[in-house]
Amino acid sequence: MTHLPNLISLLDYPPLPVRRHGRVSIVGAGPGDPELLTVKALRLVQEADVVIYDKLVGSAVLGLIGPRAERIYVGKSRGRHVLSQSSINDLMATRARAGRHVIRLKGGDPFLFGRGGEEVEYLRALGISVEVVPGISSANGCAAAAGIPLTHRDDAQAVTFVTGHAKDGEPDLDWAALVALRQTLVVFMGVATAGRIAGRLIEHGLDPSTPAAVIENGTRPDQKVVIAVAGSLATAIGDHGITGPALLIIGDVVRHADVLAETVVRAAAVA
Amino acid sequence: MTHLPNLISLLDYPPLPVRRHGRVSIVGAGPGDPELLTVKALRLVQEADVVIYDKLVGSAVLGLIGPRAERIYVGKSRGRHVLSQSSINDLMATRARAGRHVIRLKGGDPFLFGRGGEEVEYLRALGISVEVVPGISSANGCAAAAGIPLTHRDDAQAVTFVTGHAKDGEPDLDWAALVALRQTLVVFMGVATAGRIAGRLIEHGLDPSTPAAVIENGTRPDQKVVIAVAGSLATAIGDHGITGPALLIIGDVVRHADVLAETVVRAAAVA
Repeated sequence: MTHLPNLISLLDYPPLPVRRHGRVSIVGAGPGDPELLTVKALRLVQEADVVIYDKLVGSAVLGLIGPRAERIYVGKSRGRHVLSQSSINDLMATRARAGRHVIRLKGGDPFLFGRGGEEVEYLRALGISVEVVPGISSANGCAAAAGIPLTHRDDAQAVTFVTGHAKDGEPDLDWAALVALRQTLVVFMGVATAGRIAGRLIEHGLDPSTPAAVIENGTRPDQKVVIAVAGSLATAIGDHGITGPALLIIGDVVRHADVLAETVVRAAAVA
Repeated sequence: MTHLPNLISLLDYPPLPVRRHGRVSIVGAGPGDPELLTVKALRLVQEADVVIYDKLVGSAVLGLIGPRAERIYVGKSRGRHVLSQSSINDLMATRARAGRHVIRLKGGDPFLFGRGGEEVEYLRALGISVEVVPGISSANGCAAAAGIPLTHRDDAQAVTFVTGHAKDGEPDLDWAALVALRQTLVVFMGVATAGRIAGRLIEHGLDPSTPAAVIENGTRPDQKVVIAVAGSLATAIGDHGITGPALLIIGDVVRHADVLAETVVRAAAVA
């Protein structure tokens, strides 16, 4: 048998070579079901040199990352990051400047409570090429999975998305205006503060019998949907052991939930 | 050459045979860019027996429909349907009862100003199996394409989606509450009523110099982004010949638009 040179080592790139077209794609990974990735997101995670991902990105989605990609977990759990935002920014910039195509993969949509705007600004200020690829937000994903339309001709001509995340135990929101809108309210990251949020809304005039849903792990195999009313929302979350990530939907549209969902748990009678 | 029987005609199904598993998938087609279909939506339009689609579904998306599918255009343009909602409902039910897998394909997301809720209820009442597949809403698609984060730690901790469509020339909204929220406002189907909407918001206290964006054909090759301020929104729409479909984004987050978009037209100075 003739002795062949090691072609692979001759062709191998040096570590982190300076290539021409380093860039960052900030990509929404959707709510968890890997089939709810966009076609573009799927292509990008398969082609990527580097994937930097959060805690909210589902394991089934991570399984689609190409085998040659460097994977970097930066975590995120109720505001606690494995890496700080400035370390994440640094990491994206360093890899892109080394010529890598960096995919910054975020649960849901990058521009809806995803800090995508801040990351875009940071990279642009450094002259690094950046694009944003939208994802199915957890609001749209959970609504479809639980059979709850976010708007409905009979019940809601508008919908407001807020974050329940709060530094001092209560988000800084205009409760009176939220109640006055009389439309669907969607709370992201609201499990820990659900009782405070429902309490404030009721103080400002929300009917405590307004239907409310909690959707944990929406679109994933372990999805759980709990239907309650605003006045019993915190109790329902406790009784059913919901610890998040979960989405809250408060409003008359929740009455439609039982039309679709097979996983619904009824925590309280809904008129 | 031997004479072969026509196997195709022997194997052919009779027209509309009664099969076991007729069902309807109400599927979001996203904002127009075919790469922004979800993987699931792509699979379904390729497998479908029947695709019933609206005007807002982009031609590039329609090009992905499998060759054997029956395609039915039901239109929709500012409330004018080629078929009425009850005719669309009938059509879905008839085809599903004949054993077909019917894809009801809608622009954006079916549960966000898409009447998906009404169609689900109709089909469920008849005992027809139905699922909802979320899509990238035009809000998320246009925001990403124009570089406008819907929320931003500095500028907006919430976002409200409303429809600008109105029977009597003005949507029925609580203007005071919308202004009081001091957050991002997204108006779907708002080109025709943009002047009235901006006027009402300003009457109720919105600063007329609040940045506002109009995104026409967002994510499509002919996308146009016009940046104005609330006080000049209607003039900007007229000056730039925007006739829709277009999305309006009103709020301080619009200041971030120039960070990303290469297609931005500045209709007025934004502070």
